Amino acid sequence: MPEADCAFCQIVQGSLPAKIVAQTSEAVAFEDLKPQAPTHLLIIPRRHVRSLADAQTKDAPLLGDLLAFAGRLASEVGLTENGYRVVMNCGSGAGQSVWHLHLHLLGGRRFQWPPG
Amino acid sequence: MPEADCAFCQIVQGSLPAKIVAQTSEAVAFEDLKPQAPTHLLIIPRRHVRSLADAQTKDAPLLGDLLAFAGRLASEVGLTENGYRVVMNCGSGAGQSVWHLHLHLLGGRRFQWPPG
Repeated sequence: MPEADCAFCQIVQGSLPAKIVAQTSEAVAFEDLKPQAPTHLLIIPRRHVRSLADAQTKDAPLLGDLLAFAGRLASEVGLTENGYRVVMNCGSGAGQSVWHLHLHLLGGRRFQWPPG
Repeated sequence: MPEADCAFCQIVQGSLPAKIVAQTSEAVAFEDLKPQAPTHLLIIPRRHVRSLADAQTKDAPLLGDLLAFAGRLASEVGLTENGYRVVMNCGSGAGQSVWHLHLHLLGGRRFQWPPG
């Protein structure tokens, strides 16, 4: 069930605008509002899952779909040759600010280590 | 098939030592040799997959197992309350230095944004 006050559920439902770049039956990819790289997309499941900590064993296939989708999308938008980083924050201490699980896909520049 | 010159395949096979903290039928988790946080684990598939860019559609379940394993492990080692970050680098430009797909699980400190 979508959560009424979840911005990402609203994007999935089309009631909140977003620059959607690709969709599958399970996931939606759209541009981050505060991009941290020339390409910075968010990849979210259509189904509301609060965070990786709240994902259950039954959600493993969905998580796999998200990560595989990130890889395909990276290829489609031309990030593969120069490399890209995929990041998931779990919990406010790690920087999660929207409580609908999401992957960040960042590319188009060099990246530093550590990752934040 | 394991790759003879792949350090992570050698860890999976037990011919290269590593501080292994958990294993499943599909994946192995061990301590990063150059930790970037109080907890810094690498989670790898037993099967050799070069990078996310080389993963194929058939690998989606394996990718899901890895991410779900990261979430369970984070809970088991006590990272959930204060949050944690999961990172995958794809390509040398993003910092990938071992060509056997792996997830970084980092926790135990605050994280900055952008993620590197």
